[in-house]
Amino acid sequence: MSLPSGYSIRPVKASDYKRYLEVLSVLTSVGDVSPSQFEKLLDHWAANSLIYFPRVIADAEDNVVATGMIVVEQKLIHGCSKVGHIEDIAVDKSQQGKSLGFLLISHLNSIGEKEGCYKIILDCSPKNTGFYEKCGYKDSGVQMAIRY
Amino acid sequence: MSLPSGYSIRPVKASDYKRYLEVLSVLTSVGDVSPSQFEKLLDHWAANSLIYFPRVIADAEDNVVATGMIVVEQKLIHGCSKVGHIEDIAVDKSQQGKSLGFLLISHLNSIGEKEGCYKIILDCSPKNTGFYEKCGYKDSGVQMAIRY
Ligand SMILES: CC(=O)N[C@@H]1[C@@H](O)[C@H](O)[C@@H](COP(=O)(O)O)O[C@@H]1O
Ligand SMILES: CC(=O)N[C@@H]1[C@@H](O)[C@H](O)[C@@H](COP(=O)(O)O)O[C@@H]1O
Repeated sequence: MSLPSGYSIRPVKASDYKRYLEVLSVLTSVGDVSPSQFEKLLDHWAANSLIYFPRVIADAEDNVVATGMIVVEQKLIHGCSKVGHIEDIAVDKSQQGKSLGFLLISHLNSIGEKEGCYKIILDCSPKNTGFYEKCGYKDSGVQMAIRY
Repeated sequence: MSLPSGYSIRPVKASDYKRYLEVLSVLTSVGDVSPSQFEKLLDHWAANSLIYFPRVIADAEDNVVATGMIVVEQKLIHGCSKVGHIEDIAVDKSQQGKSLGFLLISHLNSIGEKEGCYKIILDCSPKNTGFYEKCGYKDSGVQMAIRY
């Protein structure tokens, strides 16, 4: 499986502002984020570049069509190993059927593996487990949450 | 509910080395971690003190009897909000029945709330959901994992 011609996977950048927010709004509430807040956020992620790996898929015109992140957590357990957290996976509705979700997850997995993670985890709703199983993931427990 | 007399909740420190590893080994494989690796890890967490909040409960002799962590992730969604991840909760077997797990989770929750998290999440096995429900958590999905 490979990206459509002209598409690429790359880090998010400031000029992605409009499309990044649009694509993420498929997943959940994005809320009010100004262009300058977006730039500050990218600076914060970049200042912590061994922890946050925000990636996008861009189409042939360099427009964002999918978003995703791996957050690499430094642990004590397993001999001071690391755990990767896959977060904020969203694919533009008009881009279904191109395996973009699968290709993005594969890319994030390979970042996590290269960073030395002993496991990579993610949380999803029961209706999405089939997709993540295709990406190599196995059901491994319950996600619990408190919301404020 | 409150801590037994003389007990305290505090950040982990270098002299906790032996007990911190012992208590965590109740949860999972700790592996080989030398005292100097432990100090390096604490330095790394301290250098990223807005992300990692490693806490312990210490008894009246200042020995570690419970471990836990909240990792605060900076997001774009929900108006550039944050998510807290509760990690590596372990209570010494000889200390059961003192509600230490509950008190530690409550403490980590209040850190996450103060840091501005819109939600706090954790992953556990189905047999532990009852405990986390007592701490205010609700079942909110499936944890998926890849292990290397
Ligand atoms: C694998 C994946 O993308 N999981 C996402 C998570 O990263 C995201 O933060 C959350 C937002 O939902 P919320 O707004 O209801 O918290 O949804 C899903 O759980
Ligand atoms: C709430 C809580 O404490 N969850 C822990 C998690 O933080 C820890 O990292 C993992 C280690 O298990 P593993 O060694 O099988 O990955 O166990 C549990 O899921």
